[in-house]
Formats: sequence, structure tokens, C-alpha cells
Amino acid sequence: MEVVQVLHMNKGAGETSYAKNSKVQSKIISVTKTVTEEAIIELLCKNLPESMGIADLGCSSGPNTLTVISEIIDVIYSKCSNLGCPTPELRICLNDLYSNDFNDVFGSLPAFYNKLKEEKGTDFGQCFITGVPGSFYGRLFPRKSMHFVHSSSSLHWLSQVPPGLDSKASTDINKGRIYISKTSPQSVLDSYMLQFQKDFSLFLKSRSDEIAPGGCMVLSFTGRKSMDPTAIESCHQWELLAQALMNMVSECLIPEEKVNTFNAPYYGPCAEELELEVQKEGSFIMDRLEAFEIDWDGGVDMPNRINGTLSSGQRVAKTVRAVIESMLESHFGRDIMDDLFQRHADLVDKHLAKTRTKYTNLVIHLVRKG
Amino acid sequence: MEVVQVLHMNKGAGETSYAKNSKVQSKIISVTKTVTEEAIIELLCKNLPESMGIADLGCSSGPNTLTVISEIIDVIYSKCSNLGCPTPELRICLNDLYSNDFNDVFGSLPAFYNKLKEEKGTDFGQCFITGVPGSFYGRLFPRKSMHFVHSSSSLHWLSQVPPGLDSKASTDINKGRIYISKTSPQSVLDSYMLQFQKDFSLFLKSRSDEIAPGGCMVLSFTGRKSMDPTAIESCHQWELLAQALMNMVSECLIPEEKVNTFNAPYYGPCAEELELEVQKEGSFIMDRLEAFEIDWDGGVDMPNRINGTLSSGQRVAKTVRAVIESMLESHFGRDIMDDLFQRHADLVDKHLAKTRTKYTNLVIHLVRKG
Repeated sequence: MEVVQVLHMNKGAGETSYAKNSKVQSKIISVTKTVTEEAIIELLCKNLPESMGIADLGCSSGPNTLTVISEIIDVIYSKCSNLGCPTPELRICLNDLYSNDFNDVFGSLPAFYNKLKEEKGTDFGQCFITGVPGSFYGRLFPRKSMHFVHSSSSLHWLSQVPPGLDSKASTDINKGRIYISKTSPQSVLDSYMLQFQKDFSLFLKSRSDEIAPGGCMVLSFTGRKSMDPTAIESCHQWELLAQALMNMVSECLIPEEKVNTFNAPYYGPCAEELELEVQKEGSFIMDRLEAFEIDWDGGVDMPNRINGTLSSGQRVAKTVRAVIESMLESHFGRDIMDDLFQRHADLVDKHLAKTRTKYTNLVIHLVRKG
Repeated sequence: MEVVQVLHMNKGAGETSYAKNSKVQSKIISVTKTVTEEAIIELLCKNLPESMGIADLGCSSGPNTLTVISEIIDVIYSKCSNLGCPTPELRICLNDLYSNDFNDVFGSLPAFYNKLKEEKGTDFGQCFITGVPGSFYGRLFPRKSMHFVHSSSSLHWLSQVPPGLDSKASTDINKGRIYISKTSPQSVLDSYMLQFQKDFSLFLKSRSDEIAPGGCMVLSFTGRKSMDPTAIESCHQWELLAQALMNMVSECLIPEEKVNTFNAPYYGPCAEELELEVQKEGSFIMDRLEAFEIDWDGGVDMPNRINGTLSSGQRVAKTVRAVIESMLESHFGRDIMDDLFQRHADLVDKHLAKTRTKYTNLVIHLVRKG
């Protein structure tokens, strides 16, 4: 399996960095916080391990990375205090692809550990934070070593572009599109669905080896409410990006073949597809599945908005750019990026003026059978 | 305890990088290879765990990092093949300070895993390589999780400059010197010895919590044969660097106070000091202690010499620079580095023309009591 290696969030702390443009993902983390909390509390009430394995899959870098970990630690700490038990030894594994900026994450750990010591005191048990690079579509951790696995805004990325769409052969198949669209032929839809099924079942199989009986996962990712994979909630962001690219083709700024041979390694599943794969794999019980909507720009009620003077379209374009620029850049080259995302921003503005489309986010709680 | 945060090998792959200038450390790894091999074989003959915890402390980045791991895996693989047993699940932890270039290490893992699969086939068990940032003068790993701990060319670095020498107060104490020297007052020698004792005993205590009964460590680092901490084998490299700095002081290129307030967080112990600390801590048996000499430039018999046209002094200066530049730079500023190491190279050449001084390297094998 050819793993997608060029997918990494924009590094550093500059204007186009993921660190500065990850409000949508931060919003998603805060919305799913309750599910995470309840899952951990349920876990600790059943069985308080002496040493607890915790993983965040697709941890990325920037402020969100340690926010998730911090919230998980807080819940464990306060639940153990309530129960009058010592906090377990925490083995915290931060996972992302090999190309993730782990140096950035590790650089912020001394301050994180100091804060932990200040807030929780010396009563708090040992906490070991490690970096585990690799694809979560495969084994990452020792057998039965994990108790709580978390992943946010990552599982909508496939392990690869579906076979048949990843080469010149795709030029005529998905012409003028970079993802599934209303006008994609059935073969394209099938390829994407099949790749999702293959990936998600491998994900479940790998985690089932790693998670101790009774352990659990809280996974949130972009999906859809509709059974139709070409529903607007699921595809329209890609559609607008394809339009921006095709505009550039019409101005001879990029060759059409470049657009036709690019296909996003992305799939936003619906509840039914998830349930089917969980059932087929057989090691987990789906305890909870919730869908919620997120504004393309992270919502207007966000307190820490730093880009107040930008239009909605520009804010959305910056968020999208921070995530997928590495992937686009390796295919289209660096030079067209500013132009591309300016056009994309304009198209998003026009679209939002007509229809307030939102992302659908799914969050699931899976418990490893005993 | 204030951990030394600015000590990291020179990053990247440029002319002054550690990756290109780590032949001495590579030579040390190859000389201690037999000790490592024999320790692992002894360990596996006593008890073959299902899941084996392995750590390399002070792993740095560049070619040496995965060489060590590769050798360890090879020994385990061939011993298990001989015994007709399946290879245990390997949990390999690469440790270094937070500022280490883990991105570089992780970037070379996909090729490493592929090579492993090619060479060892699918018979070979799972191998999980993780990054564990933090100081080894403190806890790094879960309780009793480790079976084999390795460290090369790292333990001669103290956790901090000895107290009293780390501020302006030291200006008059260790005047014109940056480490212990023949002319250092007794208080300076005492401070260094005390800091070493404190650090090494904390190191042993931390590892004793982490290493399973019967597990072991192979540690190699720069030390001395003489009981005298001011012996030439131990201090002369620093002495020459201090001379280079004082030459620059005499030319008004740096203020004298800067030199007087810099003290290297370094200590090369002798066998007796090590034995005493091991005995005092009490959890380990010292199974083996060997001393060997290494040429300052890594020896003339090295096959992969890339700097054939350089003088010995220049080669030595490059090796020293790749390791300690980060530390010197944060005190003296970046601008003087080229000049400093040119002067240092000249002094090394002059010195080696008179006396062929070598580093003394110690390697010890410690077994965790049952």
C-alpha cells in the first residue's frame, strides 16, 4: 500500500501555517469534548489500570496537538480525584505521518510538563509523552497496550488515492474534477467507496490488536448525513477548488491534464458505512454516533478569531490551504498556490452568499469487546 | 534542576552538520559493538520476553542514530533464529533532548522499515520505533518496561553547569578556563565531581525504575583512566578551545568576561567513580567495564573518510564543532564560530605534532538485579 507521504499540515507559525489556521479543527475538538470526557469516565469506572495507554492519531502540530492531550489528562485527573484513587501512570502516544513537524510538538513539551506539575502537583502520577510516527492504516503500538485512542479531523484522509485514479489513466475518468462530484462516473464513486472500506477496516483491525479489552476509541472526522456520496455537504469544498483550478486552466496557467490527474485521497463517509465496517470487523461495539455541523470558517462565535478583517471566503481558503497545500504543491508546484487560493476564496465567498453550506462532522465512540 | 536545553548536535546535512561530522562517535559505536552484542545475547539466553523494550539514550540525529538500532535488531534476530524462537515484539525508544532533530530521524524511518522487511522477511515480529524526548537525568519510560538500554557518547554531558559556575559569580573562580584544568582551584574540581555524582546517581535511579529485573544497559562515554580529573586525556580538548577563546580575547574579539562565565556541562569520569555510584545506588551489578582509546579524529584507519584533504586539526575541530557549537553559539553568538574553530584547528594541529593525545572511552555493562 502506497501511503500518502506528502500530506502534512503547513509547518511553522507563518501566515499560511496550520498553527495559525486551525480554528475549524479546534472548534471540532471543543464540540466533541463531551463525548471524549464521557468515554474516559466510563472507561475509568469499569477498570482503573495501573498504567494507561493513550493515543492521539493524526496529532498534527501547533496549538491543537497538546490541547487534546491536556483535556484528556484533566478528565483522568479529576475522575481519579473523585474516586480517591491515585492517577495511573500515563503513556501518551502522539501519532502522525513521518513528515509531521514533531520537532515543533516536542519543543513545546517542557512548558507543558511544567504546567502539569504546577496545576496537578506531585500527587499526579508519571506522564510519558512520546512521538509515534507512521500511518494509522497499519500497526502503530504493541499488542493490547492502549486504553484510550483519540483521533480528530484525520480519518477522512485515505491511505492513498484510489487505485486507477492515481495515474495518467485517470485523465479521462474524472475529467475536470479532483474528488467525487455529481457528474463523476459510477466507477469513480466505487473506487472511492472501496478504498474507504479497505482503509477503515484495516484501521479497525490494527486498533483491535492494540487496544486492551474494554478500552475504547473516540474518533471524529468529516463525513455526511446523506447516503449519497455526492451530496453537497460532502463534496462542495473540493468542487470549488476544482473550479478554481479549471479557471486557471482556461487562462493557460496550468495544463488541464494536471487537474485531471489529481485526485484527493479523501472520503467523508456516512453513518451506515461506518456501522457496516465496524460490524464486519467485529472487535468493537459502536456505543455512540453523533453528527454535527460546523461552519466552513469555524463559526462566527469563536472567541479567538485572529482574522477578523478577512471575508468568510478568505478565512475558509486559509483553513483549507493550511491542510492541503503540501499535497497540492507536490502535484501543481509551489508557484500557483497564492493565485489558486485567492480564486478559491472568491468562489467560497460567492457560494456562501447564496447558500450557507456547512461541514458535517461525525463522532463515534467504539468500545473494544472483552 | 535546570536541564541543558541548548545542547544539540548541529542539524541538517551541511558542512558543519553532525550528520557529516560524527565519525568519532561512529568509531566508538563500532568498537563497543561486541559489548552490546554479548550483553543482548546473555539477556536473551536468560529470558526471552514476548515484548522487548529497547532504548537508545542520546540518540541524536544523522546516520549514527539508526546504525545503533539496526545492530541491536540484527543481534536479536540472529539469536532468535539460532534458538528457533520467534522474534519478540520490539518496542524501540529513541531518546534525546527536546531540541534534538527528531524530524530528521523520523524522516528516515520509512526506508529503514522497508529494509528491515526486505532483509528479515515477514517472519520477523513487529517493530515499533518511537521518539521519547526528554532528559535521561530523570524518568523517561514506564515502570519495568525496558529490557535493554543503550547509550553512546552522551553520558559525559552533565544535566547542567555545576551550581556556582553557571553565573557571573564564576568570573573569578575559573578564570580563563572553560572546564577543569591543572590550574583550576579545588572548589571547581569539587563542583564538577559533585554534579557528576548527583547526575549519574539520578540516571541510575531513573533506569532502575524502568528496567525489568534481569534487563541490562550498555553505556559508553568519554572518561579517563587516571584518577586525576585534570589528567591531559580528559581536559586537553577543552584547554585548547579555551586557548582559542583567550586568543580572541587578546585581540578584543570577545570580552574576557564571556570566557570566564562559560563552563562546559561536561565530565569524563574514571572507573572508580563509576563503580562507587553503581554501588551506592544498589540496583545494578557492573558486569563489565572496559576502557579504550580513540584518536581525536576518529583514527586513520577509517574507511569512509570524507575529509581526506583536511589536516588532523581541522578534522578534530569539525567533529568538536558539530557537537558543541549550539552550546557555544548561545553564549558567544554565531558570528565568532568560524574564526573560533579555525583557531582551535590550528592549536590541535600544533598539539598533535608534539603529542598524540587520545580520548579515553569507557564502556560499562550493568545488569538490573532481580
